[in-house]
Amino acid sequence: VFDSVAIVGVGLIGASIGMALKRRGLCRRVLGIGRRAESLETARQRGAIDVYTLDFGPELSDFDLVILCAPVDRIPELAERAAPFLDSKTTITDAGSTKAEIVRQIESRLPRTFHFVGSHPLAGSEKRGPQAACDRLFEGKTCVVTPTPASDPNVVSAVTKFWMSLGMRVVLLDPDWHDAILARTSHLPHLVASALACSLGVSDTPLVASGFRDTTRIASSDPDIWSPIFAQNGAALLAALDRFEIHLHEFRSALNEHDLITLRRLLQKAKDCRDALGS
Amino acid sequence: VFDSVAIVGVGLIGASIGMALKRRGLCRRVLGIGRRAESLETARQRGAIDVYTLDFGPELSDFDLVILCAPVDRIPELAERAAPFLDSKTTITDAGSTKAEIVRQIESRLPRTFHFVGSHPLAGSEKRGPQAACDRLFEGKTCVVTPTPASDPNVVSAVTKFWMSLGMRVVLLDPDWHDAILARTSHLPHLVASALACSLGVSDTPLVASGFRDTTRIASSDPDIWSPIFAQNGAALLAALDRFEIHLHEFRSALNEHDLITLRRLLQKAKDCRDALGS
Repeated sequence: VFDSVAIVGVGLIGASIGMALKRRGLCRRVLGIGRRAESLETARQRGAIDVYTLDFGPELSDFDLVILCAPVDRIPELAERAAPFLDSKTTITDAGSTKAEIVRQIESRLPRTFHFVGSHPLAGSEKRGPQAACDRLFEGKTCVVTPTPASDPNVVSAVTKFWMSLGMRVVLLDPDWHDAILARTSHLPHLVASALACSLGVSDTPLVASGFRDTTRIASSDPDIWSPIFAQNGAALLAALDRFEIHLHEFRSALNEHDLITLRRLLQKAKDCRDALGS
Repeated sequence: VFDSVAIVGVGLIGASIGMALKRRGLCRRVLGIGRRAESLETARQRGAIDVYTLDFGPELSDFDLVILCAPVDRIPELAERAAPFLDSKTTITDAGSTKAEIVRQIESRLPRTFHFVGSHPLAGSEKRGPQAACDRLFEGKTCVVTPTPASDPNVVSAVTKFWMSLGMRVVLLDPDWHDAILARTSHLPHLVASALACSLGVSDTPLVASGFRDTTRIASSDPDIWSPIFAQNGAALLAALDRFEIHLHEFRSALNEHDLITLRRLLQKAKDCRDALGS
């Protein structure tokens, strides 16, 4: 789809994009841009990028696609810094886990000639950095692309095809709608897993089994990536939390009243919801 | 350790015990006792048991060890029903996920000559039935054995050796202490995963990714097994829930105040707690 791609931020997601592009032979040249030479060198050694630089410069105009893979609060600023060096035909997208704020800021701060549409590939893990990257990270997963009335349909189409070329299924969604759903499907479980991880007693560890480990696995994720996601999507996350606490309260009432019938019914409902998702 | 073992209830845990005994060549004869011939026949075909009966009878006196593997609210009743048929030298234990209520009821309702100590092997999954059993389910896992001042030290020792012979690490704990810890390490994550599974919107499913799946996996467990666990350990579970909600409230406050610094600190604390557990 794009002959040359510049990846800004070569962490888990950025480096995995580069590795997938290379393995699938989709792209002649991949440039890595980042702040730390060490990460960039790791990404290069892993075959994620061909070359790298530590800042934006005129060479960026030679690339067809620029993907911003950074913590969500840094993405608008990176777009702004990249803009002066972009060719008028360069497409730009991002891989941030929130969309409304990022899309609004980029659309308001950058010239209309700037070919941007937001993306969120739903792939990742609790691990971080190019050393954890994987060339199959995106296969069979879903990517949300978030056009607005200001988006160029050709850009939306090109970015959609790009993610599909990595083996992803693409869903188009309004940025606010994306954030409301992701608050429930991703940000809330992250918050809950984190609160749960903190709830353990100091001497409980020897009796932790696989259920606790699975339920709290995502609490090991990088706080620098997740705290700005929480902050940017605070309103939707608080709404999701309200909803979660209603269900928590149902369990609390049934426990207080020693109500085995209700406990069974609540657990059956939860099982039905979970079973519907598949394994 | 025991030449002949009777397993009462051949679900995931009971059948896995039988399969492990057989694979390790630890036991000459394994009897299965249950209510449903179909499950017992599946367990026999999988090599978990040699023979089976649908009720307790005089043949029970030929067995050295009886293990009660049933939902926690049925275990005391099963012990009482088995008692008339037991030889004075038969050892009896259970595999229930709660201990205080079970141990108290069995110790108060059965004759002192009855050689009982409670057990809780920390192994299992969200699956159920002998078809999901696995002969390596217990390897490398922890089993809690819960003696009381009324326990016969020889029985405690024999039951400890039994679980160790299946490849388990054994911890001895007071039954109430067991329940307080398991409320935090097992019952609370189960409740939280269940409430989370219920929090999804009807049209959210396409955007569910691996984080949500992992965090809610245990919500698929059998409600008939888990509702009596919640009911029996209600007080400790409510205390664990209180503790969890304090952490939830910290996140809520930080979200309300758009406090990125506190969000980062809370997520770092959660990461530290989770990382300490290993993968």
